[in-house]
Amino acid sequence: MTKEEFEVTAYDVKGTVDYDKLVHEFGVKHLDVPILNRLKAYTGELHHTLRRQHFFAHTNFDQILNALERKEKIYMYTGRAPSGPIHIGHIFVWQFTKWLQDKFGCELIFQIPDEEKFFFKDNVTLEDTAKWTHENMLDIVALGFDLKKTKFLIDTRDAGVMYKTACQIAKKTTASTVRALFGLKNEDNVGKYFYTMMQSVPAFLPTVIEGKPTLCLIPCAVDQDVHFRLTRDVAERLGYPKPSTILSKFLPSLSAESKMSASADIGIWTTDDAKEVERKIKKYAFSGGRDTIEEHRKLGGNPDIDVSFQWLSMMFEPDDHKLASIRDDYKAGKLLSGELKQILIGKINAFLAEHQKKREQARPIVEKLLKQPF
Amino acid sequence: MTKEEFEVTAYDVKGTVDYDKLVHEFGVKHLDVPILNRLKAYTGELHHTLRRQHFFAHTNFDQILNALERKEKIYMYTGRAPSGPIHIGHIFVWQFTKWLQDKFGCELIFQIPDEEKFFFKDNVTLEDTAKWTHENMLDIVALGFDLKKTKFLIDTRDAGVMYKTACQIAKKTTASTVRALFGLKNEDNVGKYFYTMMQSVPAFLPTVIEGKPTLCLIPCAVDQDVHFRLTRDVAERLGYPKPSTILSKFLPSLSAESKMSASADIGIWTTDDAKEVERKIKKYAFSGGRDTIEEHRKLGGNPDIDVSFQWLSMMFEPDDHKLASIRDDYKAGKLLSGELKQILIGKINAFLAEHQKKREQARPIVEKLLKQPF
Repeated sequence: MTKEEFEVTAYDVKGTVDYDKLVHEFGVKHLDVPILNRLKAYTGELHHTLRRQHFFAHTNFDQILNALERKEKIYMYTGRAPSGPIHIGHIFVWQFTKWLQDKFGCELIFQIPDEEKFFFKDNVTLEDTAKWTHENMLDIVALGFDLKKTKFLIDTRDAGVMYKTACQIAKKTTASTVRALFGLKNEDNVGKYFYTMMQSVPAFLPTVIEGKPTLCLIPCAVDQDVHFRLTRDVAERLGYPKPSTILSKFLPSLSAESKMSASADIGIWTTDDAKEVERKIKKYAFSGGRDTIEEHRKLGGNPDIDVSFQWLSMMFEPDDHKLASIRDDYKAGKLLSGELKQILIGKINAFLAEHQKKREQARPIVEKLLKQPF
Repeated sequence: MTKEEFEVTAYDVKGTVDYDKLVHEFGVKHLDVPILNRLKAYTGELHHTLRRQHFFAHTNFDQILNALERKEKIYMYTGRAPSGPIHIGHIFVWQFTKWLQDKFGCELIFQIPDEEKFFFKDNVTLEDTAKWTHENMLDIVALGFDLKKTKFLIDTRDAGVMYKTACQIAKKTTASTVRALFGLKNEDNVGKYFYTMMQSVPAFLPTVIEGKPTLCLIPCAVDQDVHFRLTRDVAERLGYPKPSTILSKFLPSLSAESKMSASADIGIWTTDDAKEVERKIKKYAFSGGRDTIEEHRKLGGNPDIDVSFQWLSMMFEPDDHKLASIRDDYKAGKLLSGELKQILIGKINAFLAEHQKKREQARPIVEKLLKQPF
């Protein structure tokens, strides 16, 4: 695969992603200045991931703005398919989701599709996904979502409220469609064929339960839009409102792969200790610096390919002035690669120290939430 | 299709069924004299549908007898996919099921897969199946199943307890398998692909809930065995006991088609009044009598192709002596076709008068049952 070639599917990201091309291919829209201005008029400010175009695209986000401006109720929906620990890449989307929830004051459905990885990975059992449901919810709760307005929808627990709507979606979805969208074959298990029905349910559930159209906004990484393409298509035929998505680029992996993957790459887990974080960043974070200090001082580093800089930009340095001065210093050779890494290490460890404390405090809350069906 | 050709699938029966051939093709076993004797030793008597080989085949029924003889717990599972009224053909299987429940003193799971016809028939809505769930349960309760030992499992209501087990089955079932078993194509909706998972669940549910192997017996018409072929195959790979089936021939339709179909044929509904029953039997019941009374008196009728006689044999005349004398008289030309029909009309109307009374009495019970999740 050359640098110009890349592939983004719901289950795999390969190559260096050209996001402009992706917007075109996926038929989604850029989050352009007019729409960002409308959002800013409502929220009073723009999150750094919007200012910096890390959340860069959308579908039907204007209908969400219309509703908010008319003071109509909207809600959000995000999710986590549990089969392993949470890494920094997951936190990236959820921090933004929390920001939106705080600004919109809206309800959030947090889906835990605990059957997805069971269907898609041979060696994952439902016992595994139950364990990771518990573990992952600790992280989610630790992030500080407004729990009065956040409801967890755990598929194997809450199928009772989901299945009927999943059936309605299933009747409108042919095997051809899911084969084409997800590359499924005859030898794939039928769980994979049905799964997206369950993933579509939260996009309609409040409309179904309340008996009146309620708009849904889904913040997610751009590769997940394919699930909701199906959802949008079916929405129309079921007479439900189309869900809107607001789409992010991928947080690059330490080795500068386009998307951090839980399975294939070294990641920073939310349970890593300070030493481990330092070791991983120092050893693995792909650097845009020069080969020698002398060269670096003379020619400067390249922040655009430097993973540490990208992580600061996407997550850990929300202050634009500070980020700009890091960028300038790095390009000018004033800031060395090791020093840039040290800034990131400090930021991550400050975040994780706080996160891990909140994660422990979340234990009794999660125990309670697990016993509260949707 | 010639007389020698026939086709039996889970969703269609065509031609004149050769049941011996079917036993061979389906890989099921005849209910032979030794196994019937074992059953009789346990129950004290044989139901007329067993004595007359209307229930004629089985899979693994010997393991049920083993368990009963060892005084181990077994349970039964039957079902009804609601999308229209109940006809006499449905009652045929359930009367036998009730007899077995009474003899075995066992629990019965009565599944109401209220999504099946929604998936398989374009014009059926979930509102329709909800309406027919209610209507059909009136008939089921009217038949007198021991409600202390009978639990209704309504798919869209009870998916909460079913979905996890359905997922386990789904992971072991490829699209290839359901395509081959049910003739599904790419253009079929994915609900059809997933449906059999839900139909398999009751065969494992007590084992899952109680955490120890519990044997399951499924009385059904032979065309339904294909669903449970999949279930048996998966059972082995999930480490659950294989369900057993006890299989009936089809109650012929009035026009002597192999299987009475709710959609394609004139049927006797449980809500028909006495006049309507008389009219339908007189007008439509295929007769094995001769063209003229004179001929009939001289040559006699043929009970083996006479639908009225078949219905008496399968359902309405459990007394072997009485049935034999009807048969003899008919063959001898002493009993005319109209007189044979009159015997059947009397029997059906006596049954329906009682059934309809009990059906009305069932209303408050069904209201309550609908509010009792599994």
